[in-house]
Amino acid sequence: MSEPENKKPKTDESDPAPIKCEDLIIDGWFHERGTLWPGQAFSLKVEEILYNQRSEYQDILVFKSESFGNVLVLDGIIQVTERDEFAYQEMIAHLPLYAHPDPKKVLVIGGGDGGVLREVARHPGVEEISICEIDKDVIEVSKKYLPGLAKGYDDPRVTVHIRDGSKFMEENQESFDVIITDSSDPIGPNSVLFETPFYNSMYSSLRKGGIVCTQGECVWLLLDVIKPLVNSIKEKYSSVEFAYTCIPSYPSGQIGLILATKDRGSCKTAARQPGEETQKALQYYSADMHSASFVLPAFAQRAIFE
Amino acid sequence: MSEPENKKPKTDESDPAPIKCEDLIIDGWFHERGTLWPGQAFSLKVEEILYNQRSEYQDILVFKSESFGNVLVLDGIIQVTERDEFAYQEMIAHLPLYAHPDPKKVLVIGGGDGGVLREVARHPGVEEISICEIDKDVIEVSKKYLPGLAKGYDDPRVTVHIRDGSKFMEENQESFDVIITDSSDPIGPNSVLFETPFYNSMYSSLRKGGIVCTQGECVWLLLDVIKPLVNSIKEKYSSVEFAYTCIPSYPSGQIGLILATKDRGSCKTAARQPGEETQKALQYYSADMHSASFVLPAFAQRAIFE
Repeated sequence: MSEPENKKPKTDESDPAPIKCEDLIIDGWFHERGTLWPGQAFSLKVEEILYNQRSEYQDILVFKSESFGNVLVLDGIIQVTERDEFAYQEMIAHLPLYAHPDPKKVLVIGGGDGGVLREVARHPGVEEISICEIDKDVIEVSKKYLPGLAKGYDDPRVTVHIRDGSKFMEENQESFDVIITDSSDPIGPNSVLFETPFYNSMYSSLRKGGIVCTQGECVWLLLDVIKPLVNSIKEKYSSVEFAYTCIPSYPSGQIGLILATKDRGSCKTAARQPGEETQKALQYYSADMHSASFVLPAFAQRAIFE
Repeated sequence: MSEPENKKPKTDESDPAPIKCEDLIIDGWFHERGTLWPGQAFSLKVEEILYNQRSEYQDILVFKSESFGNVLVLDGIIQVTERDEFAYQEMIAHLPLYAHPDPKKVLVIGGGDGGVLREVARHPGVEEISICEIDKDVIEVSKKYLPGLAKGYDDPRVTVHIRDGSKFMEENQESFDVIITDSSDPIGPNSVLFETPFYNSMYSSLRKGGIVCTQGECVWLLLDVIKPLVNSIKEKYSSVEFAYTCIPSYPSGQIGLILATKDRGSCKTAARQPGEETQKALQYYSADMHSASFVLPAFAQRAIFE
């Protein structure tokens, strides 16, 4: 125990063994074996590697899969597949947006692939959409290999900021009706996005009546992260709730979403509904799904809220 | 094209290449690569192989996994893991049982591990529980390696029939308030369980007001099987509905459930609720989850019901 107590795990480029996505392709299959889900793995058959480079921040891999379309992998973890991405993008965007009666200004943190932007842009009442993505290479790669997501950048209301979301929020206090944090898992530098100070920053950057929606991890895997986080942010936010969406390519087949409000009550019932044409274009979200997505399995409900 | 049109795939023991579960363990991991979900695979790390024998009907493997407890595999497909089995057993049993105001006689087809029996036995009003499991080895293996499930056999209301469920139903017309079919996937001999004649047999074996609940496959994988089946059985049953449960160890992380009634309306709202003590013992089901589980992603709702 000669290590100083405040030593952080190495996460920068000098790390002696950074993850190489390519090493996870064995016998033609990409194997996702994350440290956050020991003993289980999801694999996709690879047809062709389309891109593999290390950016300033992470190892980026894009491959064409046999049955899930193109797949974006960051530091060994599947972020997006063309086949099921809508289940995540629609829910992380439309739960807070339809829970809000009149969102005008929206901030997206992370989400460099553009999929969340695409969904936010379905709301005609939204006037400004800002995105803070720290890794410009993710944006460029997505524009090339995930055009169905990156078309979100085409909307004229979108402004791109290649920078740290926390710093941007410091300069934009009480500015947003909805903040959506589309982050990776709580490993290394991403851990801060699952800690109380980041939620305090979002709170300060929300307008009165505002709503945040963040990637909240999976109740089957990370209750130990979810429960203390939810408890901690309850002290500041008016309401803190947990929903989830089912998505086959994420570990254990689902991912949670934390919804927290400033001077507003529950988000469980939609304040607005998609119009007929919008609903036809949606593949996962509906007003019924909105409410149903907050109903957790009994074990998770007890663990997080009792 | 010299094959006769009515040639069926070979499924009996003379098949030249029957599945050997053991062949799916590579480098200490069990890899589930089913023909029904090409290009994707779920894997579990193996600590110890506890049992591997071919029964009269199928290849049976039980292994101790690193993080999912003991795992039962039939013909290469994961059937049960101790870690998440409750998500399936509770939902396939309690959706029809709590939708029925007063179920007295219950038939379980398949489900040799005993997990469904365990859940049915939570209902004090149920007087008789019959189970038809064709493979006695599954029962014996479960009693030895999955005692948390097989304890379902201990209930004095349970009668075990080692035989084909269809034949049993022929001899028991208009007999059951609830019939639960806990089957494997529609491959080989199991295919008949996903066809109209089997649903007709269940209908004839139901009492007035009765409900069937069957393993209904995953909307992400087998809409092509689900949609025609639902459409076909609508002609006979008073109501046909589709629910689902999320379970990490099943392909794509979830499995559907078909609920169909005889002289009864929708099952979407529970007619009864678990008492306080029962609810504490449940890990997945609740009255809220009952209703929420019928809310499908927009793409699946449209595909199956529009």
